[in-house]
Amino acid sequence: MSDPNCLFCKIAAGDIPSTRVYEDERTIAFMDINPGSRGHLLVIPRAHSKDLLAIEPEDLAAVTRTAQVMARRVTEKLSADGVNLINSCGPLAWQTVFHFHMHVIPRYEGDTLRLPWQPAPGDRDEIAAAARALTA
Amino acid sequence: MSDPNCLFCKIAAGDIPSTRVYEDERTIAFMDINPGSRGHLLVIPRAHSKDLLAIEPEDLAAVTRTAQVMARRVTEKLSADGVNLINSCGPLAWQTVFHFHMHVIPRYEGDTLRLPWQPAPGDRDEIAAAARALTA
Ligand SMILES: [Zn+2]
Ligand SMILES: [Zn+2]
Repeated sequence: MSDPNCLFCKIAAGDIPSTRVYEDERTIAFMDINPGSRGHLLVIPRAHSKDLLAIEPEDLAAVTRTAQVMARRVTEKLSADGVNLINSCGPLAWQTVFHFHMHVIPRYEGDTLRLPWQPAPGDRDEIAAAARALTA
Repeated sequence: MSDPNCLFCKIAAGDIPSTRVYEDERTIAFMDINPGSRGHLLVIPRAHSKDLLAIEPEDLAAVTRTAQVMARRVTEKLSADGVNLINSCGPLAWQTVFHFHMHVIPRYEGDTLRLPWQPAPGDRDEIAAAARALTA
């Protein structure tokens, strides 16, 4: 269920810190540290699976349900004007961490998101502030 | 359950033609006529809902399950090297048809997909050939 070399398994176990904004029995949502926009977060299953081809259907359904919850929350609490859900399956599809994850990317009037975005560390205070707004 | 002015409701009803590559009780998959890559297809719920914020959880789970089925199929039958799933919620997130849909975009070594892609009509014969391969 867990891969000792997997970054997101370590995040799920709490062995590596993350800014969690939601969790339930099967899933965890936490802030992306290289955000494409304000409030960009990731939803993962607690159980390890490499990608979309490998994930158990129950985990996939649970991740998607959590993504919907978080899409509503970024709309309500961050006043996002839209949301993109993105899953990358395979290195050629821009997957870089091989534990299934769904990106929830809030969109705003005038933002300049293009994909693939160039991952770059976000401002930690900004990310923390967005996380506080999401969980308020 | 159906919106008389909705393009994808008409496609679901068969009143507007589409190239279907999968269907089950709750969902339909058909080829995108403005493909970002070979085999680009859309998965929709039969029941109308505007977007990710509005869709019933059961339909969302069913769409995602079908998207996984089709991701496996493009990998196996089109030899895709990766897959992106994308949902656009709201005009600012590039949504243009307001009936929930999940893009399944096969990825290939050396493709040049960037998002947003510029929708442009694909070659109809190519699309039909990809659909035949997907349903073979
Ligand atoms: Zn893992
Ligand atoms: Zn519709």
